[in-house]
Amino acid sequence: GSADAAAAVADRQLQLTKPPGSLGRLESLAAWLARWQGREAPLLNRVVILVFAGNHGVTARGVSAFPSSVTAQMVANFDSGGAAINQLAKAARADLTVVPLDLDRPTADFTESPAMSEADFLAAVNAGYAAVPEGTDLLCLGEMGIGNTTTAAALTAALFGGDGEHWAGRGTGIDDAGLKRKREAIDAGLDRHQDILADPLLAALSLGGRELAGIFGAALAARIRGVPVLLDGFVSTAAAAPLAKLSPTGLDHAIIGHSSAEAGHWRLAEALGKVPLVDLGMRLGEASGAAVAIPILRAAVACHNGMATFAEAGVDNKD
Amino acid sequence: GSADAAAAVADRQLQLTKPPGSLGRLESLAAWLARWQGREAPLLNRVVILVFAGNHGVTARGVSAFPSSVTAQMVANFDSGGAAINQLAKAARADLTVVPLDLDRPTADFTESPAMSEADFLAAVNAGYAAVPEGTDLLCLGEMGIGNTTTAAALTAALFGGDGEHWAGRGTGIDDAGLKRKREAIDAGLDRHQDILADPLLAALSLGGRELAGIFGAALAARIRGVPVLLDGFVSTAAAAPLAKLSPTGLDHAIIGHSSAEAGHWRLAEALGKVPLVDLGMRLGEASGAAVAIPILRAAVACHNGMATFAEAGVDNKD
Repeated sequence: GSADAAAAVADRQLQLTKPPGSLGRLESLAAWLARWQGREAPLLNRVVILVFAGNHGVTARGVSAFPSSVTAQMVANFDSGGAAINQLAKAARADLTVVPLDLDRPTADFTESPAMSEADFLAAVNAGYAAVPEGTDLLCLGEMGIGNTTTAAALTAALFGGDGEHWAGRGTGIDDAGLKRKREAIDAGLDRHQDILADPLLAALSLGGRELAGIFGAALAARIRGVPVLLDGFVSTAAAAPLAKLSPTGLDHAIIGHSSAEAGHWRLAEALGKVPLVDLGMRLGEASGAAVAIPILRAAVACHNGMATFAEAGVDNKD
Repeated sequence: GSADAAAAVADRQLQLTKPPGSLGRLESLAAWLARWQGREAPLLNRVVILVFAGNHGVTARGVSAFPSSVTAQMVANFDSGGAAINQLAKAARADLTVVPLDLDRPTADFTESPAMSEADFLAAVNAGYAAVPEGTDLLCLGEMGIGNTTTAAALTAALFGGDGEHWAGRGTGIDDAGLKRKREAIDAGLDRHQDILADPLLAALSLGGRELAGIFGAALAARIRGVPVLLDGFVSTAAAAPLAKLSPTGLDHAIIGHSSAEAGHWRLAEALGKVPLVDLGMRLGEASGAAVAIPILRAAVACHNGMATFAEAGVDNKD
């Protein structure tokens, strides 16, 4: 990131017609965008939402309230414009692209073997890396995949410690018996793969999923190309989290749009030192929690670039 | 409000292609808009922001970091499009109207006499009432007035109890000595007007200000005409609060856009039983905290009206 661009933003903020600091987080968001875009005047002309989709072998353990068939059905719903993210993307003037990753070939059940082969994992990472369009000013990352809050909880436990009870929530709304199965599956996965848990990439390969690997690849591409990232909820934050484990500053180009109602997300956000922009009790995924926060970044940019200075407006500054 | 419209929204939400409840507060916001608009499909075609401005005699007590001249200068800045609210209104596709109320005739210093005569108070209430355009789908209420966090704190103390120390914060950024003067002025006002504090309207007349009375009048007009209201920060919430004191449901058509960093706002929100939509550490006024929340309501409406149902999309519902 460009420290100069961030400093230029901070300097200009002090000259704008408002008490210093009174735009709160809008001020630091403008500086954050400038830093990662490497521009003194941050832009949000092209906001891109990528939704990666994948299927999960661990659903055989009865960990979700919905059948795996719903993943492909929801991808079709995305394609025909009927899902929440279609409406939210339109409202936020963002381009939406859905990237289904081998839906007819679910990952392996991680309680029995690694979820993916190295080739499968890298193919999904590469698909994510390649999916970030040139000229993207802000990248929002989300997912769809029945069973993937189980996957995300297992990966998070591998990266940050803790077990199924600590990290697993009700996902799309599973009942008590299902939640128990979910926690047991996570613990079984952690146990089976205990030898590789200290390696963030092997943990993502062994306990993750294709859509999580796609998010990881896209977040990596964004870092290299200077694109700020808006993460969605528990699954997309978990998917990007290996970057923070590979380098202490590896996720500094990403913020979290919304604090999910899925248990575990606020804990994961805290572990990453990130404060989500909003908390509206959502727990849908699909990048919906990122999309709902896009207008806050637009507000930050609009104020920063559009406001008059005290000198320009002839307004008396503080006594 | 229309309970039927709200119930129709709740029923449709259960059929949309998402786990029930997974859009969190976006679902209840759609129902709230429908209730007060009296429409089963809530609309946000015309969003109106009204910013009322006034000057305050209590500034003679040294309660603000900025001179009173700034009120008129900022109104000029609003008119020429250079303020934060101009950028935020444009970003949220809202119409902005600024209503200056006798800026060259400040209210009286409330530590010495009632801030306004009955005629002045009613003129300001009427100006607010008349300022709400026909066909408004959502009304955002904000203000500008050097010294008015002192006014708002005094009015809030009158309505909900407590003193200057409990309700006064640093406003635009006053120093320790100024904060002490501010608290003393509030306590002196409460003492001088102790006989009328139990009457919400007399409290607004005696301790309030013209821009607060304008907000009160506009919020009243909105209630009568079925227009949902988005309140801004501490001052606009305090200004509308007499409606809640006049009737327990008097402010049910209003929500708070943003939890202000101004001390007292979260306490006032709690006293009113309201949870602000976002908290971004802003403390500017000008309706900025309401404007930044408009896109969340647009998101709620877009999802509610635009999403496909399970039947329409051919998506399997919960097991």
